Order: sequence, then structure tokens, then C-alpha cells
Amino acid sequence: MTDENVQIRLASRPAGMPAAGNFTITPAPVPVPRDGHVLIRTQYLSLDPYMRGRMSDAPSYAPPVEVGGLMVGGTVGEVVESNDPGVQPGEVVLAYTGWQKYGTAPAGAVRKLDPSQAPATTALGVLGMPGFTAYAGLTQIGRPKPGETVVVAAASGPVGTTVGQLAKVLGARAVGIAGGPEKVAYLREIGFDAALDHRASDFARQLAAATPDGIDVYFENVGGHVWHAVFPRLNTFARMPVCGLVAHYCETELPEGPDRTALLMSAILRKSLTVRGFIQSEFAAALMGEFLARATPWVRDGSLKYREDIVDGLENAPEAFIGMLQGKNFGKLLVRVS
Amino acid sequence: MTDENVQIRLASRPAGMPAAGNFTITPAPVPVPRDGHVLIRTQYLSLDPYMRGRMSDAPSYAPPVEVGGLMVGGTVGEVVESNDPGVQPGEVVLAYTGWQKYGTAPAGAVRKLDPSQAPATTALGVLGMPGFTAYAGLTQIGRPKPGETVVVAAASGPVGTTVGQLAKVLGARAVGIAGGPEKVAYLREIGFDAALDHRASDFARQLAAATPDGIDVYFENVGGHVWHAVFPRLNTFARMPVCGLVAHYCETELPEGPDRTALLMSAILRKSLTVRGFIQSEFAAALMGEFLARATPWVRDGSLKYREDIVDGLENAPEAFIGMLQGKNFGKLLVRVS
Repeated sequence: MTDENVQIRLASRPAGMPAAGNFTITPAPVPVPRDGHVLIRTQYLSLDPYMRGRMSDAPSYAPPVEVGGLMVGGTVGEVVESNDPGVQPGEVVLAYTGWQKYGTAPAGAVRKLDPSQAPATTALGVLGMPGFTAYAGLTQIGRPKPGETVVVAAASGPVGTTVGQLAKVLGARAVGIAGGPEKVAYLREIGFDAALDHRASDFARQLAAATPDGIDVYFENVGGHVWHAVFPRLNTFARMPVCGLVAHYCETELPEGPDRTALLMSAILRKSLTVRGFIQSEFAAALMGEFLARATPWVRDGSLKYREDIVDGLENAPEAFIGMLQGKNFGKLLVRVS
Repeated sequence: MTDENVQIRLASRPAGMPAAGNFTITPAPVPVPRDGHVLIRTQYLSLDPYMRGRMSDAPSYAPPVEVGGLMVGGTVGEVVESNDPGVQPGEVVLAYTGWQKYGTAPAGAVRKLDPSQAPATTALGVLGMPGFTAYAGLTQIGRPKPGETVVVAAASGPVGTTVGQLAKVLGARAVGIAGGPEKVAYLREIGFDAALDHRASDFARQLAAATPDGIDVYFENVGGHVWHAVFPRLNTFARMPVCGLVAHYCETELPEGPDRTALLMSAILRKSLTVRGFIQSEFAAALMGEFLARATPWVRDGSLKYREDIVDGLENAPEAFIGMLQGKNFGKLLVRVS
């Protein structure tokens, strides 16, 4: 290879919101794939909120990135060299090679993509981990019945747009919450029954007006003040799939008291609520095939809409990532690497 | 009837822990059963923590007792007059006639008891609402697998003893938490694998030692400092049926800050926890028959043990009830009325 690799590594652990200085961009040799492995040139890097957790060494469901280590992440790329008979150079694959221009992976750990079925980038969004998070959380935990009300925040992101549109497929009413008028207009455009701006001063009142029959499913990926407005609107037997709490990822201390934990527990008891945390991987073995079989045709025929926010150049990944944690992206955030 | 009725009514709503002054004991006429109704002389009145909720007008899953109204409660009694062909005088029935010596009920709302199957008092405890709460919560929500660890607090009460013994039937390890050495000794006697006194100064350390593989099911009926010790021990995919929070029922203000709600939500996310509130009535139609068919023989052959704490005299119900909220009862609390 005459090209050179570029990597983004974790320079230091952030306290609160990450800053550019928490990352280092360094040249590196292009790796050599071992037997049974492939070398992949990254085309697109996915940026996702869970990566904030990997930057921290607080207990989590997955080990942290070591300081000095390569930032992890899902990628779509082209195989440029293969030491496995099952994968050919030129094939486009979904892999988990992280924030770098070139990476290697075991051939068995990549998924071949067929661009005639759907654009390759969708494997990182609507037909990838975020879309499957929506599908698994809604079909396995939220289980909306026809006529019920489903509320989702960060609704213009790749999980939220899918949650809302799937809720409609299942016959439920979809209420989306997002930040700013453009995002809210987009939610209405793609079929949400109601869309609200959580930055509005009367947001809680708007939410009450948009959920006249209360809330049966709250798909929780945000937390914070959106949760406080949702909480009193939950109906008896409401279900809360919890897949993210992005409003809290960069908090450095707990909010002031009093301690309201007992209020939450009392509501869980009083209203027979189901609160269930999940990581999509729990359901992948059982459900990923079903999800792709159902959702790929929807993407192809345009009935399942999605939006991508593509940033050019790997070197811009840190800034784009920080912006995402602040709600600045509009749609699935991707970095076009090559 | 030459006898007179005696009723205990709600004199005023308590702030915090109820006091004797919140109740009035008054004579009343023996009621006359309408067509299709029966007149029942109360033998035993059940005292249960949920009654604290009925004394309050805070939002709940059931309407409150009005000030001046009769205190509600489950009873076992003898039918002394019947205006329904399906029920005969002399039959012993389970009813919901409240804190009084005589009450009427629709014949269709009473359950006939067969004292040859099990003592009638068990219909208020191990074979009644508390036992069924344990059965429904454990089999429908907790779902322990063989070898998993189930923890229950208030473990010498009628829900807790049943939870622990059912956990053993299901092949799980049962860890019980109670207040004081006698209760702890009793839990060991009836087969809990470990039993702990939550009043011990090193309770959290003892709990850690008793749950070396963490906690897979925490049957929550208490809250408070027991919950704080349990919380960090919960395993990934742990389940928490929540059927009571007796430590919080008499709180008049929230604990001091910081607000730890986000810690709970983060753990739910990080550990893929299931937290599910329930009232046993949700499951009664589907499961009560199965429960009675399974558990009655266990009670009869002595394999499902239970303990009753019987107080004599309806006039002593308020003091006994207040004592129960303070953990003074030892086993299912009943008042022998006649």
C-alpha cells in the first residue's frame, strides 16, 4: 500500500463534555491482515452516543477504550486485501474497525453489504445498530397496541425516526420530541402524529396537549428534562424501553436534591410500570434477520424514511461527535472517511 | 340479631406514621343484607401495608377511604344470614368487608373456604392476597432460573416467606432480609439459604457476603436503606418485581439530595435491568386458580410454611396496624374479631 493510515485515539478521559484535546489524530502504518482477516479501507465511520461511555472508565456494559487506544466505532468500507476465501477485494462490508482510515477484521466478523438492496450507509443507521435498537426495543419491550400513544425523544436521530415510523406501522400514535423547529418540521413530514420542541418554554404543557390519553410507551434515549415532562403523563401499565440517557452522559455531578428516586419507584408501583434497560445486542441473534428482512424493503420503497448527516474527513470526527452530544446533528451522523 | 356491630373508621388522614387518633371506633347497627347479599360475622381481619395508601388521598391505584369512612380490608367470617341461594348460613367465606364486626357482601363476591383443605386464616395470608402476590411476582416477573439468587426483604412477612420458599421450589438461592435476630432465625429455619438483619451496622457488607454471585431477582416490597444495599449488587439482566415500598409509605418529605434518580436510570440501562411494578389483581384472573391448586397441597403437607401474628380484639387493630408499619409484627398480621 502506498497510502498511509490515519487514526484517532483517546488522548485523555473527558470530564463532562469531551473537547478536541481528548483526541489525538496520528498517522500510522496501514495494518497487515492476518490469516483469515481482511483489510478494509473505511468509507464511512458511524458516530453514536454510546461512544461517550467508551471514553470513560466508569462501570459500563462494555470495557472502556484505554487512554492512548483507538476510538471504537462501526464502519462501512471496501475490502482492499483479503486473507480469507470467503471475502473478496472490492466487496463493501459493515465492520467495527473504529476511527481510522484502514482497519483489519476477521472475515467472519464483517457483514457483506449489497448496495443494490439499500445504500451502504444505511447499514450504520436505519438498517444498522440504531434502526435495530428501535425495532428490538419497540417490538420486544414497548409492544404498543393499536391506538396507544408512543413517545420518543431525540426523535430526528436514527433511533427516534425509526421508533416513530415503526409505532405507526404497529397502529400506534407517534409523538416525537426534538430540539429546534427544523427537526420538528421534519418529524411531521415523515408522519409523526405530533412533534414537539423540547426547548420551548411551555414544553411540558405542549406534551400534555399532544398526549391527551396519556403515554403508553416512552422510548427512553435521553433522560433529563424531557423525562421530567414525560413522567407524570405515563399511563397505568406503561412500558419504558431504556436504551440511552444522552442528557446525562456528560454530567459531572448529580443534580441538586431532594432525592426523587422514591418518587420514581412509587410511580412504578402505583402505575404498574415496566422500566427495562437494554442494549440491542441482547436481541440480535434472535431478531436481526427478521428486522433486516422486514425493514430493507421498507427502506427500498421509501416507506421507512431516514436522514443522514454526513461530515467530510476523518479529522473532523471529534468536533462532529462533540456536536452530536450537544444535539447539533440532524439525522444519523456519519463521517465520510474516503 | 341481638348483637351490635362495631366499626373502625378513618377519623383523619395521617401525616406520616398513623396514630391512634386517626381512627375512631364506633358502634353501629348490624347491617341488613339486600337481595343476593349475605351478612357475615367477621372472624379474622387482615392487616396489610397497602392500607396505609388507602388512608391517604395521594394518587394511587385505588381510591382512598373517605374521611369518616369505614377502613377497608380483607376478612374471613361466617355467613350468619343469606339472601342468596348459593351461600348458606354457617359457611365460612373470604370477603372484603373491612374493619368491622359484621358486614354484608354480594354472594358472588365472597369465596367459600373449605377448612378441611387449609385453615381459614390462610385465605388472608399464604393462600390469599399476600401469597398470590409472591407467586405472581416471582413466576411472571422475577422468573428465577435454577441457581440464580433471589433476594427479598420483609422476608418474615407473608409475601416474603412465600417468595423465599417459592424461589427454592424453582431451584434458586433464597436470601431473606428481616429486622431482628428472631425473624432472621425463623428464615433460616424455614429454608432460606441465607438470612440477614437489616438493622446490623454492617448490613451492606453482610448482603455482599451472602450474594457472592450478585442478585438476579430482587423482590421489592420495602425500599429505603435495604434497596440502597441491594442496588449495587444487581446483576446484568436482573429483574425487580415491585409490589410494595413500605419504608416510604409514611415519609412526609423526600430525602435530602443530591437527586439520585439518574443513577437508578443509568443502572437500568447499563445492566439491562427490568423494573416492573405490579398489583396482584392484574394476574388474578389468569393465575389464581393455578396458584391455589399448587399451593394448597403445599400448605396442607407442611412444605410451604407460614407464620401468623394474631392480635385479639377489633379495638386493637389500629395499634397493631401502626406496629406493622414499624416492623413489629412477626408473620401475617391478623386480628381475631370474634
